[in-house]
Amino acid sequence: MIIRDKPGLRELLFALRGSVLPVIAPSLAVVALVAAGLVALDRWVTAMPHVSAVPFTVFGVALSLFLGFRNNAAYDRWWEARRLWGGLVADTRALIREAEVFVEAEAERRALLAGQRQFLHGLRRALRGEAGEGPTPEAALQAMNRVLATARAEGRLDGFGARTLSGRLASITLAQAGCERIRATPLPYVYSLLIFRTSWLYCLLLPLALLDGPGWMAPVFVTIVAYVFFGLAEVTEELAHPFGATANALPLTAICRTCDIALAEALGEPVPPPLLPVDFRLD
Amino acid sequence: MIIRDKPGLRELLFALRGSVLPVIAPSLAVVALVAAGLVALDRWVTAMPHVSAVPFTVFGVALSLFLGFRNNAAYDRWWEARRLWGGLVADTRALIREAEVFVEAEAERRALLAGQRQFLHGLRRALRGEAGEGPTPEAALQAMNRVLATARAEGRLDGFGARTLSGRLASITLAQAGCERIRATPLPYVYSLLIFRTSWLYCLLLPLALLDGPGWMAPVFVTIVAYVFFGLAEVTEELAHPFGATANALPLTAICRTCDIALAEALGEPVPPPLLPVDFRLD
Amino acid sequence: MIIRDKPGLRELLFALRGSVLPVIAPSLAVVALVAAGLVALDRWVTAMPHVSAVPFTVFGVALSLFLGFRNNAAYDRWWEARRLWGGLVADTRALIREAEVFVEAEAERRALLAGQRQFLHGLRRALRGEAGEGPTPEAALQAMNRVLATARAEGRLDGFGARTLSGRLASITLAQAGCERIRATPLPYVYSLLIFRTSWLYCLLLPLALLDGPGWMAPVFVTIVAYVFFGLAEVTEELAHPFGATANALPLTAICRTCDIALAEALGEPVPPPLLPVDFRLD
Amino acid sequence: MIIRDKPGLRELLFALRGSVLPVIAPSLAVVALVAAGLVALDRWVTAMPHVSAVPFTVFGVALSLFLGFRNNAAYDRWWEARRLWGGLVADTRALIREAEVFVEAEAERRALLAGQRQFLHGLRRALRGEAGEGPTPEAALQAMNRVLATARAEGRLDGFGARTLSGRLASITLAQAGCERIRATPLPYVYSLLIFRTSWLYCLLLPLALLDGPGWMAPVFVTIVAYVFFGLAEVTEELAHPFGATANALPLTAICRTCDIALAEALGEPVPPPLLPVDFRLD
Amino acid sequence: MIIRDKPGLRELLFALRGSVLPVIAPSLAVVALVAAGLVALDRWVTAMPHVSAVPFTVFGVALSLFLGFRNNAAYDRWWEARRLWGGLVADTRALIREAEVFVEAEAERRALLAGQRQFLHGLRRALRGEAGEGPTPEAALQAMNRVLATARAEGRLDGFGARTLSGRLASITLAQAGCERIRATPLPYVYSLLIFRTSWLYCLLLPLALLDGPGWMAPVFVTIVAYVFFGLAEVTEELAHPFGATANALPLTAICRTCDIALAEALGEPVPPPLLPVDFRLD
Repeated sequence: MIIRDKPGLRELLFALRGSVLPVIAPSLAVVALVAAGLVALDRWVTAMPHVSAVPFTVFGVALSLFLGFRNNAAYDRWWEARRLWGGLVADTRALIREAEVFVEAEAERRALLAGQRQFLHGLRRALRGEAGEGPTPEAALQAMNRVLATARAEGRLDGFGARTLSGRLASITLAQAGCERIRATPLPYVYSLLIFRTSWLYCLLLPLALLDGPGWMAPVFVTIVAYVFFGLAEVTEELAHPFGATANALPLTAICRTCDIALAEALGEPVPPPLLPVDFRLD
Repeated sequence: MIIRDKPGLRELLFALRGSVLPVIAPSLAVVALVAAGLVALDRWVTAMPHVSAVPFTVFGVALSLFLGFRNNAAYDRWWEARRLWGGLVADTRALIREAEVFVEAEAERRALLAGQRQFLHGLRRALRGEAGEGPTPEAALQAMNRVLATARAEGRLDGFGARTLSGRLASITLAQAGCERIRATPLPYVYSLLIFRTSWLYCLLLPLALLDGPGWMAPVFVTIVAYVFFGLAEVTEELAHPFGATANALPLTAICRTCDIALAEALGEPVPPPLLPVDFRLD
Repeated sequence: MIIRDKPGLRELLFALRGSVLPVIAPSLAVVALVAAGLVALDRWVTAMPHVSAVPFTVFGVALSLFLGFRNNAAYDRWWEARRLWGGLVADTRALIREAEVFVEAEAERRALLAGQRQFLHGLRRALRGEAGEGPTPEAALQAMNRVLATARAEGRLDGFGARTLSGRLASITLAQAGCERIRATPLPYVYSLLIFRTSWLYCLLLPLALLDGPGWMAPVFVTIVAYVFFGLAEVTEELAHPFGATANALPLTAICRTCDIALAEALGEPVPPPLLPVDFRLD
Repeated sequence: MIIRDKPGLRELLFALRGSVLPVIAPSLAVVALVAAGLVALDRWVTAMPHVSAVPFTVFGVALSLFLGFRNNAAYDRWWEARRLWGGLVADTRALIREAEVFVEAEAERRALLAGQRQFLHGLRRALRGEAGEGPTPEAALQAMNRVLATARAEGRLDGFGARTLSGRLASITLAQAGCERIRATPLPYVYSLLIFRTSWLYCLLLPLALLDGPGWMAPVFVTIVAYVFFGLAEVTEELAHPFGATANALPLTAICRTCDIALAEALGEPVPPPLLPVDFRLD
Repeated sequence: MIIRDKPGLRELLFALRGSVLPVIAPSLAVVALVAAGLVALDRWVTAMPHVSAVPFTVFGVALSLFLGFRNNAAYDRWWEARRLWGGLVADTRALIREAEVFVEAEAERRALLAGQRQFLHGLRRALRGEAGEGPTPEAALQAMNRVLATARAEGRLDGFGARTLSGRLASITLAQAGCERIRATPLPYVYSLLIFRTSWLYCLLLPLALLDGPGWMAPVFVTIVAYVFFGLAEVTEELAHPFGATANALPLTAICRTCDIALAEALGEPVPPPLLPVDFRLD
């Protein structure tokens, strides 16, 4: 994630980190060239059809609404993913406290907290598709549950504690299932097709409506409109995958570190420092 | 569901899987032919009325907003259905863990998990209208509840466990009722009528506003606008039925398999492999 | 509620059930006549002012946004009402199961389920303003609560059961209050006034912007635009009253029947068949 | 709140109750006069600049979107306030039932219900800024809590009852805090400034784009556009204060009466009649 | 936060507090100067390209939708932050009441309430980045939890109380994590870049479409359009940081004071007065 203040003049002109410009630059070049070519053809070779504005206005409004919808859906996925991880931070802290209140045996308390640490890092790795040692998130939760079941069976955990802590595990399970849902279920592919196809059609045909004015402005305007449409399409593509590796993905490592700090304090271990953005980027 | 990366050049040009193009192609052909016919009539037979852009702009904006609303509503149904099944995955895992903590008797614990497996597959079949053996989801839940009631009555399940597990069944029941609600209550039919009628009217009349420019462009533009409007209407039709058999419906079989894996592990049975997309499609 | 597949050609042309066309036909006729009269006046009597498109475009966009907002709000009411009744189905099934687990005495269990049946039908009648025998929903819930209080006071219901079942009644109470809220609090009247007034103004003045083209098209276009605006206004009017008697209202009788089936099974009574749509309509 | 059917012809033409017309009439008059003055200047004194439509279209669309956003936010506040009070009705009924199940001593049960009555009327007065006798809502809840604490300390309320009833008080507290939040935190003032300033600018400049057509239509159209923009701004202003004294504010007195009826029945007191709209208005 | 009535004539003309005008004035000046320069060049030096309206309409609509989205997202952050703090007020009052019901020892009850006071002020300081004495919010909650754990271990807190109060701490933890989420996760930076870049491009190019009419109106209109776009962008920038120090940030000090009052009453300490707006501003 990019952590940066409101862009100033210099960022507006030059910032590329976190920008989608590098990604869409080739498409913009294609669109600009096609527009320039159409203008050149129209001027020096043969008259191209000069199309009225009506279809472009309607088409453009429809496309804008469509992009707006997809943008909303993508942002909602991104923000829901962030909420789920915010919930996991709260679950971690609540687990620490509930273990202190309800679990008598120090060893079992420590086992629960260590299990939660393994769960968090396992979930992070699973969502990002990273390699790494350690149990899967499911295995970590299962091990924590076994601690509870044993303590309950052997009478070291009363009914109130069993209900509280197994409710906490259920809350963690729900957050985990939410994250897996977002990862496993992309936005419907049909939207991607429809949006990219119509954006391309729009930008390739738009020059025909701009032939009447001064010709050399057509490529400029088509490029700007393409910047808005392709840029938005690309942003939504990135935000729709909040667990990806793009500059706009969620900083899971930093969130896990926040939990690590709380867990280390509760376990009496050396506390790691919080992660800070490097070159405005936090992972 | 189609699981595929961002469409590249080849997909943009040729992809048909998950696309709505095959479905709406006949309508597009009709619209294009009518437009071509009107242009031909206007050129070679008798002048058709050349209509100004005003009504089409307003009409087009209103239609876009309307389609946008329906698209939102359809996507919300699809995503809510996905959330409910994500919740069922979490409920399944939580049930496994809570049974381990609160249910003493091994046989009763296994009966609960086997019942959950029957419930999930029964619900999948019921939502999709598939034939198949096994109890209805209601019967499966009722059988699980009987296990709880018997264990409670005979003292093998204490109050804490009874509250926890019967709360879990209530959570599963709520998800089930949510799925049945989405399946039994389509989007209001009046929207379908209004949208399809106005889309057709718009596309059939639009050529009249495009007669002034170069004639042969009119069919092209009308077809493109129709592609956007009919395409969006068709997408929303598919997403509004998330339990259907279209390429954009939810992959219930694969989600059930995720639960089967967790249940098989907990029951000590051979663990089936997760389902993977075949030819980009996951069912 | 109309239960029908995607409209085909025949439905697009002729379907009136579930359509708002019959309701708005008189308004459309008025608008068309006024438009035709203005054109006739302009042609044969005296020149009418030919107005530019600017105000109509802005006015039309504003009106579309406004109608879109009201449509969203109305649909949200309709869908929330449906969710609340879906929740009542889940509450009914959960009540059956929790009574089996926590209520020892068969007679008290049966009294609870019979009370729930009376509550559901009482609520249905109250929301629809139908006459009919039986207690009010409040009285039915109060009677169920008295069963719980007596059983608790006389020691046949332990604390866990009392908490579970009184929590279930609280959940039912919340759904009931939600339904009453939707019924008693219409959309703010000021919206209705503002929307109907501006829609009429728009459609009556729009002909002045269409006088320039071929005159006989003006009434056609005005009628189509009026169809979209009045049609949408009427749809939202119907959906905003989800407990009404229109074709688009919720099928409360069929939902109650779903609950009746579950209750009859649990009570060992003959099970009624589910309600099916008659002539595509389900009440 | 205005309780009235869909407006018919007579209401469309003449209804003023619940309409914002009286409030915005002065602004409309100013706008119409300025427009007429500009037309007169242009005709008879000196040519005014005839401005093209481009900036007005974009400006108008941006303003419409902005007004639409504010309208959504205001309606959400209004509807959330209504939901919170609907929740308080449910809380009141649930409190009555839970007190019956869990509170042994008749006197303490009655004290709880009387306290809830004081709380509701105290909250109503506090939200509306009305004078009146009786404790503040906080004091009423505190007194109810003291009843619980005493009963618990003296053994007349077991742990299950204490948890249930103190959970109920927490739910009431949450609704109270929600109402206070809506009352104490208006929509950001910057929106009001931005919207009123841009609406005025738009309506005062719009005549310049309408000078080309028949002059006397300019004031008419400007007034209509101003009616839409100022009307919507005024509606959102009213709905954003759901606890105010306008015709569109929430009928808190009537909602409190609904609770009074349930409480009087439970206390065995004479039951007051429900409040009905007077002259279509319910307070 | 600015607490002020609907702006009247004087505020519309002169109000600067809570307005974004001072912030965006330099940008407006730049845009106006560029527009004036282009007009001057076109008139007196060399003809500039006179561009048609088509690209600006589409571009403007797309930009409006984009700004509208960002505005929604920013307002949602602001309002969610306000809801979280409203929830903390409710949590504080519920904690006071639950401590009265469930905690026997006066000293422990007081320790909990004092801890909550430290937590609230610690959270306020942490969110605003203010210096100040006192523990971090985490440390305050941990100390409160230790009180519960000790009381539970030594038998002064039964299982019901432990579950209730540890549930309350979990609810407070969730609100805290929500606030930290909003503070630590800004809106995606890519949106800021995209919006500021396209707003600037739009406003700098717009004069080219306004050269045809009376020249001196171009700078006026460009400035007005820039006022809408930059103003909205700046408002969303402020609202997106609800814990900042701007005039539109949340009044955390006043909300903390509301809690202080309830806590002081419960602790029997002198009750501080509620904070009132100073010069219409509440912090």
